[in-house]
Amino acid sequence: MAESHDAVDIIRVKRDGGRLDDGQIDWVIDAYTRGAVAEEQMSALAMAILLRGMDRREIARWTAAMIATGERLDFSRLDRPTTDKHSTGGVGDKITLPLAPLVASFGVAVPQLSGRGLGHTGGTLDKLESIPGWRATLTNDEMLAQLAAAGAVICQAGSGLAPADRKLYALRDVTATVESIPLIASSIMSKKIAEGTGALVLDVKVGSGAFMKNLHDARELARTMVDLGTDAGVRTVALLTDMSTPLGLTVGNALEVRESVEVLRGGGPRDVVDLTVALAQEMLAGAGLDVGTEELHTALSDGRAMDAWKAMIRAQGGDPDAPLPTAREHEVIRAECAGTVTRLDALGVGVAAWRLGAGRARKEDDVQAAAGIEIHAPIGTTVRKGDPLLTLHTDTPERFARALDVAREAIVIGADEDARRLSGAPATHAGIAPREIVLETVRA
Amino acid sequence: MAESHDAVDIIRVKRDGGRLDDGQIDWVIDAYTRGAVAEEQMSALAMAILLRGMDRREIARWTAAMIATGERLDFSRLDRPTTDKHSTGGVGDKITLPLAPLVASFGVAVPQLSGRGLGHTGGTLDKLESIPGWRATLTNDEMLAQLAAAGAVICQAGSGLAPADRKLYALRDVTATVESIPLIASSIMSKKIAEGTGALVLDVKVGSGAFMKNLHDARELARTMVDLGTDAGVRTVALLTDMSTPLGLTVGNALEVRESVEVLRGGGPRDVVDLTVALAQEMLAGAGLDVGTEELHTALSDGRAMDAWKAMIRAQGGDPDAPLPTAREHEVIRAECAGTVTRLDALGVGVAAWRLGAGRARKEDDVQAAAGIEIHAPIGTTVRKGDPLLTLHTDTPERFARALDVAREAIVIGADEDARRLSGAPATHAGIAPREIVLETVRA
Repeated sequence: MAESHDAVDIIRVKRDGGRLDDGQIDWVIDAYTRGAVAEEQMSALAMAILLRGMDRREIARWTAAMIATGERLDFSRLDRPTTDKHSTGGVGDKITLPLAPLVASFGVAVPQLSGRGLGHTGGTLDKLESIPGWRATLTNDEMLAQLAAAGAVICQAGSGLAPADRKLYALRDVTATVESIPLIASSIMSKKIAEGTGALVLDVKVGSGAFMKNLHDARELARTMVDLGTDAGVRTVALLTDMSTPLGLTVGNALEVRESVEVLRGGGPRDVVDLTVALAQEMLAGAGLDVGTEELHTALSDGRAMDAWKAMIRAQGGDPDAPLPTAREHEVIRAECAGTVTRLDALGVGVAAWRLGAGRARKEDDVQAAAGIEIHAPIGTTVRKGDPLLTLHTDTPERFARALDVAREAIVIGADEDARRLSGAPATHAGIAPREIVLETVRA
Repeated sequence: MAESHDAVDIIRVKRDGGRLDDGQIDWVIDAYTRGAVAEEQMSALAMAILLRGMDRREIARWTAAMIATGERLDFSRLDRPTTDKHSTGGVGDKITLPLAPLVASFGVAVPQLSGRGLGHTGGTLDKLESIPGWRATLTNDEMLAQLAAAGAVICQAGSGLAPADRKLYALRDVTATVESIPLIASSIMSKKIAEGTGALVLDVKVGSGAFMKNLHDARELARTMVDLGTDAGVRTVALLTDMSTPLGLTVGNALEVRESVEVLRGGGPRDVVDLTVALAQEMLAGAGLDVGTEELHTALSDGRAMDAWKAMIRAQGGDPDAPLPTAREHEVIRAECAGTVTRLDALGVGVAAWRLGAGRARKEDDVQAAAGIEIHAPIGTTVRKGDPLLTLHTDTPERFARALDVAREAIVIGADEDARRLSGAPATHAGIAPREIVLETVRA
């Protein structure tokens, strides 16, 4: 491509609140990927985009330009439709683990190209790597073969998809330019569109443990991504889901695998089951299958989803029946008074689990498979003084002190009166009050 | 300094419209100078500052932090007060050349640490280098010795003054973050305060040929710089001066030296003389001397200023009596119709001179000493068809085509009727209508 543009002119347009034209966007993304636009120029542009915004056309073009820097996968050789899910990341969000095999058990292919966790929200690959033998890296051919044979694959996204996004994300991370809805949306969607899925369900988390702290921002992100997917020919829908308190009763890698397996056996916490079923229904609808929630609950309890799980894990070298690692050290946080748990803050629990070793501060850090938190008293639970609230797990007990601080602050025990006013209903199903997990649905 | 701050947190504060505290500013400037804050982080911060602004305290601290990265000069050993001038840059702005010796002839020391031109506004050092033998680089000791002996020095600012500013300016230049009043003001004032002058007069240009295109922005920049200087103990005043049309009748290096020498002989274009006198009066007032304009005009015509000029040029190896270089090639632009010149756009003339070789596109480019433009018909001149309007000079005739295009567009010849309405007065003094050169004065 000719050096027909100038990076400074392009930054200036966005800085002054203008719109970038298609040629400017194509050029700047390509030139940045090639190194002809410097990191400091792209960071200035990213800050200008964060503060000035981009319109729907600009975002679509920016996404297309990032896709054009890499390869696109092609699932057209498969004998079945493809459908995928993306979550914006939450605390205790293990939904992909039961969801992918559940959907695959209905004969739809689920190509889940996933990432590792950074910060307090865990990564799906980190969780699965706590299963002995399981490996995250597959070639494109291995992935296609597994989709044909097992129906579902959860593996590491190859470096060939939207390399511009990888480079740009690393830059945004160190320049305080992550929190831009156009840049978040184009980052997520460039990889999902390049991946070649036919349908996509977005799980946009809202609340303290999520990237989007309020419904307004979550709606805007969801609408932007649904538009992007739709414009690119992917049947896309977004669910806005509650992330004010952790999903389920475990946070951590092996702990979340254990809970996911409970769901695949027909049990598990109600919020995890509800969200799994809601997302599965949308994923199947995107693939053209109209499946009721009862049928989905049945597939979880009659072993069909579990069979698909075991096939998926085995295909990637894992032993689904092997014992999961457990942590060497534990600490229990107990109730200091009687009452009802009125608050269990997702961010606090997430940060505590991260400090215990379940997550990483830098990309090159290792995670502990067994570190994390078990929740004994989710919101709505009535407790007596001395009852266990949380158990903290780690292999490195020197981590307890800083994790305990933030975990204790995450819990509020109120008088029963307050609690009834708050929840409006008694505790049910594995101790969790019937939580409204899906808040809104955003469609094309 | 301890790494007690995090660059991303600091960028985030400014991105979200907050105020940086003193510790954050001190840390980020120091860490950037040391390389501990990356270029891409500083460019994101610069963009956030450009779009969010800084308040008076932040700007003062930012400036102080930049000064603290380098050395400060000390003129207290001199037997006389010091006073300096800074211009924000304009087309044909050779004022420093007659001004420094004029002020020095009244017994006040003028330490003019200057820069080279980049873009369409020329640099004072480039102009002086067209004088055979003259050199721009002096040690601090040589500078002090010359101030004591000749009273005035115009030399290259050493790299020891505010090195943070040098690094930051180069970054801003490639990231479209130059046009921020807080960053412009702190860049200029960090060097002037570090230079150690006792008084400072700022010539803030306004109009098409200037950085500030309108009075509103120019006022804000002037106010910001006057406050910065005042807070730092430098007696500072700013004049807002007209840069809608070039200053004087020459644009280019040797051409402007020639015109400056005319002024020092008691002649020269009226606008150049008026601005020189107005700035000299303020510079002397800053040094505690109350000198009237008549006395200043007299110093220009009776040879006192010329003597100071010759002493200053000789002290830096130059021969003030040697012939100046002349260009090998000329092209004359002539009036295509009769009428009165109603517009002679500063930017157009500046860009034309720059394309002829008088300026540089990149720092490493050379400039042509003899390239530039002579103006035969400034605004208000009545011309007949075929009369010369401009003469273009260059050593490299292949440059004429692109320079002629922009130079022709810079001139508008109107009917006499329009012209009278416009100027309200007949042309006088070297052909220039009595131009209101000083538009406003901004004081502490």
